[in-house]
Amino acid sequence: MASMAAVFTKTPYPSHSLNTIPNTHFVPIRKVSVSLSPVRRTYRRLRVSSGLIEPDGGKLVELLVDDPLRDVKKREALSLPRIRLSKIDLQWVHVLSEGWASPLSGFMRESEFLQTLHFNALRLEDGSFVNMSVPIVLAIDDSQKHRIGESTQVALFDSDNNPVAILKDIEIYKHPQEERIARTWGTIAPGLPYADETITHAGNWLIGGDLEVIEPIKYHDGLDRFRLSPAELREEFTRRNADAVFAFQLRNPVHNGHALLMTDTRCRLLEMGYKNPILLLNPLGGYTKADDVPLSWRMKQHEKVLEDGVLDPETTVVSIFPSPMHYAGPTEVQWHAKARINAGANFYIVGRDPAGMGHPVKKRDLYDADHGKKVLSMAPGLERLNILPFRVAAYDKTQGRMAFFDPSRPQDFLFISGTKMRMLAKNKENPPDGFMCPGGWKVLVDYYDSLVPMSDGKVPEAVPA
Amino acid sequence: MASMAAVFTKTPYPSHSLNTIPNTHFVPIRKVSVSLSPVRRTYRRLRVSSGLIEPDGGKLVELLVDDPLRDVKKREALSLPRIRLSKIDLQWVHVLSEGWASPLSGFMRESEFLQTLHFNALRLEDGSFVNMSVPIVLAIDDSQKHRIGESTQVALFDSDNNPVAILKDIEIYKHPQEERIARTWGTIAPGLPYADETITHAGNWLIGGDLEVIEPIKYHDGLDRFRLSPAELREEFTRRNADAVFAFQLRNPVHNGHALLMTDTRCRLLEMGYKNPILLLNPLGGYTKADDVPLSWRMKQHEKVLEDGVLDPETTVVSIFPSPMHYAGPTEVQWHAKARINAGANFYIVGRDPAGMGHPVKKRDLYDADHGKKVLSMAPGLERLNILPFRVAAYDKTQGRMAFFDPSRPQDFLFISGTKMRMLAKNKENPPDGFMCPGGWKVLVDYYDSLVPMSDGKVPEAVPA
Repeated sequence: MASMAAVFTKTPYPSHSLNTIPNTHFVPIRKVSVSLSPVRRTYRRLRVSSGLIEPDGGKLVELLVDDPLRDVKKREALSLPRIRLSKIDLQWVHVLSEGWASPLSGFMRESEFLQTLHFNALRLEDGSFVNMSVPIVLAIDDSQKHRIGESTQVALFDSDNNPVAILKDIEIYKHPQEERIARTWGTIAPGLPYADETITHAGNWLIGGDLEVIEPIKYHDGLDRFRLSPAELREEFTRRNADAVFAFQLRNPVHNGHALLMTDTRCRLLEMGYKNPILLLNPLGGYTKADDVPLSWRMKQHEKVLEDGVLDPETTVVSIFPSPMHYAGPTEVQWHAKARINAGANFYIVGRDPAGMGHPVKKRDLYDADHGKKVLSMAPGLERLNILPFRVAAYDKTQGRMAFFDPSRPQDFLFISGTKMRMLAKNKENPPDGFMCPGGWKVLVDYYDSLVPMSDGKVPEAVPA
Repeated sequence: MASMAAVFTKTPYPSHSLNTIPNTHFVPIRKVSVSLSPVRRTYRRLRVSSGLIEPDGGKLVELLVDDPLRDVKKREALSLPRIRLSKIDLQWVHVLSEGWASPLSGFMRESEFLQTLHFNALRLEDGSFVNMSVPIVLAIDDSQKHRIGESTQVALFDSDNNPVAILKDIEIYKHPQEERIARTWGTIAPGLPYADETITHAGNWLIGGDLEVIEPIKYHDGLDRFRLSPAELREEFTRRNADAVFAFQLRNPVHNGHALLMTDTRCRLLEMGYKNPILLLNPLGGYTKADDVPLSWRMKQHEKVLEDGVLDPETTVVSIFPSPMHYAGPTEVQWHAKARINAGANFYIVGRDPAGMGHPVKKRDLYDADHGKKVLSMAPGLERLNILPFRVAAYDKTQGRMAFFDPSRPQDFLFISGTKMRMLAKNKENPPDGFMCPGGWKVLVDYYDSLVPMSDGKVPEAVPA
């Protein structure tokens, strides 16, 4: 997949701005060729001073302690009251440590939590707002709270009992589970995957504070090299001389409709006058629900899509977004967009029903399919981000390929939903030619093949990552 | 009660500002004596150009049609598709018509509704925010939507079939009942009074648009003269040469703890250098739940409190706030505060658990008692309002009067909750001397006396207004 990192492309279009939002954050194009294979991790602590969009709050808040201090901090951690992190907690430490949630400096204290729940935004000292729509919080129970006692800091340990971070200047406050779920998802129906996993049975308290993360978070799953931090992504965009970065969030295999959309977006940006728009294809790598395709298989599939030339490796950066998935629709899509500002993206592609799912109880989608893009386009703190609404792509039977839906001839189009796609792959049926590149489709079929059938012959649901 | 309107008081304190929020909106004091007995309704359409705090969006948006046009508009209404308003819908028309919700120009369209649900704020064209935390919407059902068809306007009729208003440039959009409840209340538990009354069984559609209200909304309950509009209140504050207006929202009888708080607030404002702070005692007059004391009895009680001299009529304006009550805690308290900005108040007193109630299902309060004031103090669009947190008052047994709670001697204090107060009055028991002025207490006892006991001897719950 490293082949996807390559030189910028040359384009002949004159510069003019997309809309009223000025794009003065962008460097002029210089023709510099950069190879990046594999991506180097050495520029972790670099501050990017190029013309990319500024991170929220003006600078990327990275929370890793400097190398020489790691041993000291480890020893310090061993002397403090301990909190054992769940897998999802650890993913949030990862997210926070790299500045995806800038300007947050750790797990939320109550004032940040309340602003997130009520306003989807945090007020900065200068009176301006940054967007923040999902609570990034750490729950503890009564006995943990008791053990912490009067300590002003705690140590966070992973499931193997390794010290991960120190949380300083802590604030412990009540965890209003029901209210948190209602305000984040717009329902409290049982069966919301993230809520069931992390909130409903979580402790009665939340603990906020400033994080000092001892070492970079690694998963040792063969994919760590694809987990670029916002600083690394910014460095990469700068090396490629990007004058526009458009982010595409996904948690599903890429089909040719997605590819069409991404390619088309690049064309539109070129037409607007940008000379080197770079695509950030940024699959979500944290917790997903059981019936989503696991990250490792998705990454294999994305690799095939690039190998097959469906997307241009020269103008595409594929990297994993370490956040867990909430499936909180219009609330969560703001988080997905905001985090990508911190990674250097100034354009964000938003589709139908982003971060949505079926209602866990009722026979309908949880969210109105249009609310996500509407809410995103009005969200406080995202003014600097250009929202690019999805054009609906479907399989055009007359052309035998994915194309933008033409409402004047609906009978010619076939809509293949994610559910339908998964069913086909599970049953080893082929989608129509041109729906997905053959190499990518084979990965999907192989994935479902890899699941051991149950005694009744049915293919089991996967377990979440 | 008209006696409460009188001359300003003279104070000797020098001027200095309360905090970092400048109070430059205020006129210098001129010694002008004004009588206002009874309040005149003739200045409905006056624009107040004094130094009071500006309404949200820069001007008060009043939606009454000019007198000469009323007959034309009535005839026009008769020719349009009709929507029959519930009592609560009519209260919202009242609220909107007088500009309490400025800059809203009618029932919310979808973009306003979504911003309210997600951000508790509306973005203005200049990029600034005004606060707006509760949806002000009008629900219709499938058959009403069908009857409206392609019409771009509809007429709103009251329960007696009188035309009330025309709603123009309408937009009909889906009514996500569950999501609306979850995001407004932080729960969807059955038993939320306002939700049960107006949302759960409401139609599947909301209709927004610009309102033209044909005549001032009247209730003919003997209390209309106490329903001053924001423009009238602003006129009144200007006549009294107020240099600070502090609002006190209430939906309960006033006891001496409240009175202490209001009196103390005035002293604090005087100490800060304000020369003529005026109290806006602004009882909520719209829908309340069945076990709250009805408006007519509360107004009698407030009158007694002023007659008994517990509050100073010279520096107090008592007027009815026409909004219905949501009981939505931290979300609703923002609405209560925002509406009072429009009425000219630049200080807002906030207590413990504002707009709160017991959880309808669980044995606890619905909201954390401190969240209201915390959320209010951080809310977007309320930056210009000075939030004055309640000091806790309780009955001091050593002094035989209500006093500010002294945590160093908790054993000396008796807390009398609203529920406890109502129980005492229902049972014709007396509270301790000094809890409430005797005239005020008698009104409460008379109220419960007026309820016809049921056959089992129990006093029934009142029905909501």
